[in-house]
Amino acid sequence: MRNIEIVGYGTYVPENIVKFENQIRHRVAKTDKISQIDMAVNAIEQALKNAKITIKDIDCIVSTSAVCAQLIPSTASLIHERVAKGTNIPAIDINTTCTSFISALDIMSYLISNGRYNKVLIVASEKASIGLNEKQKESYELFGDGACAMIFQKSDDKNKGIIYSIQQTWSEGAHSTEIRGGGNLLPAMEYSEEKREDYLFDMKGKEVLLLAARKLPKFFKEMFENSGLSMSDIDMVIPHQASRALGLIMKKLGVPKTKYIDIIKDYGNMVSVSVPFAFCKALDEGKIKNGDTVILTGTAAGLTANAIILKL
Amino acid sequence: MRNIEIVGYGTYVPENIVKFENQIRHRVAKTDKISQIDMAVNAIEQALKNAKITIKDIDCIVSTSAVCAQLIPSTASLIHERVAKGTNIPAIDINTTCTSFISALDIMSYLISNGRYNKVLIVASEKASIGLNEKQKESYELFGDGACAMIFQKSDDKNKGIIYSIQQTWSEGAHSTEIRGGGNLLPAMEYSEEKREDYLFDMKGKEVLLLAARKLPKFFKEMFENSGLSMSDIDMVIPHQASRALGLIMKKLGVPKTKYIDIIKDYGNMVSVSVPFAFCKALDEGKIKNGDTVILTGTAAGLTANAIILKL
Repeated sequence: MRNIEIVGYGTYVPENIVKFENQIRHRVAKTDKISQIDMAVNAIEQALKNAKITIKDIDCIVSTSAVCAQLIPSTASLIHERVAKGTNIPAIDINTTCTSFISALDIMSYLISNGRYNKVLIVASEKASIGLNEKQKESYELFGDGACAMIFQKSDDKNKGIIYSIQQTWSEGAHSTEIRGGGNLLPAMEYSEEKREDYLFDMKGKEVLLLAARKLPKFFKEMFENSGLSMSDIDMVIPHQASRALGLIMKKLGVPKTKYIDIIKDYGNMVSVSVPFAFCKALDEGKIKNGDTVILTGTAAGLTANAIILKL
Repeated sequence: MRNIEIVGYGTYVPENIVKFENQIRHRVAKTDKISQIDMAVNAIEQALKNAKITIKDIDCIVSTSAVCAQLIPSTASLIHERVAKGTNIPAIDINTTCTSFISALDIMSYLISNGRYNKVLIVASEKASIGLNEKQKESYELFGDGACAMIFQKSDDKNKGIIYSIQQTWSEGAHSTEIRGGGNLLPAMEYSEEKREDYLFDMKGKEVLLLAARKLPKFFKEMFENSGLSMSDIDMVIPHQASRALGLIMKKLGVPKTKYIDIIKDYGNMVSVSVPFAFCKALDEGKIKNGDTVILTGTAAGLTANAIILKL
């Protein structure tokens, strides 16, 4: 077990709401100037306040956004500039798309428990609404904007921390969820209105769902076998809010209806923000508490799957 | 000490050469179709051959490119698709721009020495030539394309591995080295010929040099004090090939002329590829050998500085 614990957390969603039937999505209004970095900063300020510490108490800043703010420098550096300018705090981007937050917590838990860093700030921020394709109804109606920051430190309580973690990547799905343009393969400088869709988010929802449904049961089985735990040991599953098919996947994985967080209706898929946001919301609402055993899990573009079994 | 050792490595540079007076730069020819991913794959294939293993022996693939191949999914996933499709090997991007390779090795050494992953493949690939601005002579003549892959594993030799590592970020320099466009803050969809320079690499060389010269001596002092070592314990410094001012910086840091690798003249700055590429070249040429103590170091956009003291 890698002994870590939560020190504080903060969340941010834009006030502006877009509705698709009964589905609510928070999205930065087009007339509004709130950037991805602004949202990250807002969530961090709340997290520091919640933890009753200042930025000077933080030993490392990790940004987990799926889509970068600029191609250079790292998103973490641009966030650092707003909250930690003048300090030496290291800033790093860790990216596995939608599950980046889980990857970052998984990875940084080794550095925290080893004593390299005491307090690590992990921040997810996404302005997904920028890159949506209005012609692709399924993804256009799914995504929301927002940010979430959580601070973790080494725990003196030997029962608290990460019991088990796993990541797998199945690149059969590498092109099932994409923004093809903007990076090195199809540079922004080649943008034209005719090629616009190549620069927007493109999700083949059925492909993703089929691959996930085929791979995840074995992934979950491996997690339980290797950790020596079973579903009955778990108090709550906090899944990535991938799509409205969340209930179907949870059922296939044997997660009872009472044992997972589903906030798709009110927030949709917030990319890398979804998992920490659902985590913080569950803490705020008392759905999970000290001593509980929770699973953070999800699939991401790649296709990548992550899971952490965490004792709070 | 975190006990790790090199299992194998491979490098790739495009055959095409561009010359600026006596300075040689390897750059993918405009008529050539070699992508960032192609270069990464080539380096990985050589690394696996050099290590006498197959991809199935690898437990984690980390990509450290400063500039992503696509905005979604991770560059590591797109590399995975070409070398590891059908496997479950996790794929992760770790990014601190030019020093990403050092950050990734630093971070992953905790997971290797802890037993999470046995063999980790770290691959850097950059096609910097795409984003250069012909009007900015200093940066236009500086960069080269290429890739480098290195495989690390846990070492049974208690003397081998990472003695000390440090990262600091000084975001006073967040805008000294940038590609402003392409990400969330200035999306590709807003591209126009008038705004072209915002989508190209922009380096304020003097600003970077002044900030680095001001901060690095203290950074090096901290490294030596905390590690209990001094320059006389070091056999070779492998610095990021940041610019032709490399010699000046090394002098300021008290690194003798015989004790650092300088391949700027033949390769220029290859972004995140520079450090591992110079590392592999030094190994190939016998400039460093088993038992030597080396420092991997550099500054990156952000401004971020990294250093690892590694006993081979």
